[in-house]
Amino acid sequence: MEQLKQKIRTCGVVLSDKVLKVDAFLNHQIDPLLMQQIGHEFAERFRDQGITKIVTIEASGIAPAVMAGLELGVPVIFARKHQSLTLTDNLLTAAVYSFTKQVESTIAVSTRHLDASDRVLIIDDFLANGKAAKGLISIIQQAGASIAGLGIVIEKSFQNGRQELEADGFRVESLARIQSLENGQVSFVE
Amino acid sequence: MEQLKQKIRTCGVVLSDKVLKVDAFLNHQIDPLLMQQIGHEFAERFRDQGITKIVTIEASGIAPAVMAGLELGVPVIFARKHQSLTLTDNLLTAAVYSFTKQVESTIAVSTRHLDASDRVLIIDDFLANGKAAKGLISIIQQAGASIAGLGIVIEKSFQNGRQELEADGFRVESLARIQSLENGQVSFVE
Repeated sequence: MEQLKQKIRTCGVVLSDKVLKVDAFLNHQIDPLLMQQIGHEFAERFRDQGITKIVTIEASGIAPAVMAGLELGVPVIFARKHQSLTLTDNLLTAAVYSFTKQVESTIAVSTRHLDASDRVLIIDDFLANGKAAKGLISIIQQAGASIAGLGIVIEKSFQNGRQELEADGFRVESLARIQSLENGQVSFVE
Repeated sequence: MEQLKQKIRTCGVVLSDKVLKVDAFLNHQIDPLLMQQIGHEFAERFRDQGITKIVTIEASGIAPAVMAGLELGVPVIFARKHQSLTLTDNLLTAAVYSFTKQVESTIAVSTRHLDASDRVLIIDDFLANGKAAKGLISIIQQAGASIAGLGIVIEKSFQNGRQELEADGFRVESLARIQSLENGQVSFVE
């Protein structure tokens, strides 16, 4: 997706060979128009898949997921990382290790909002080693719902997340695929 | 805002005299179309205010804030509650006590994205005792930016948040104002 790649080139900051900072438009400050374009692109790629629900994780997945949900006309669920007084239902949970935060956390989705009749599109901001994606997949499978695929904003293609997800039979659609962050430079998969 | 009140009546769950659960459309599962309508309403109420930036808090403020940002054509910043490897700038911080989570946390915004030239609209999902709002106000004032007002999705008018914010001179626009949750019933301020 060219607008996204252009934004990464102009506003992304390479912090190390593995870490790309995109807090100018995705992870802290959000560019709403770019999110709308991203939502449109996800919707285009999965429009024929009978999606009934989008599932993402708080916090940075929410903006692109809601824009895709608006365009597909389906609700969005964001998995919670932190306990809340008002999230008191029976919960579907999975353990997820976060590379960028270097902690393991439990993500949770209420059984009220997901069931075996659902066909789910997973959306997330980053795909690296696939830990978050696998946590979401586990939760959706516990609910008995089917998975149409994963829509990823930025894929670090030099890590093994896509490879493992595809080996498990999942369709992965990433809007920007980063081949390398070496020497402080972003290069994309062609 | 009538669509919002209707949604609260049909999908809100009163957990106690003080706690309203809206995780069917705002706090866990999100209704994207309702968020678009909410964003439109906030934009209408603040369109003449020269807003340059919207500031909210992760996670439930993000969806309404991004929809308002799309309509006003301005970026959205969400204050972070949790440390991240990629949020390494100089940070503006404030301590916030969360009633629903019963913990004190530090919220943070990078100095990169907010400065004295900004005129800010604060958006949040709930206003109760105003602790989160005051944390955001502190951060925005530390940046030297001016505050056009606060856009709140659901106000618990039986708590003192609005009163205190208005006493401090801030404009508060709430789309649904709840007078009482007593006897398991939602009643709105007329």
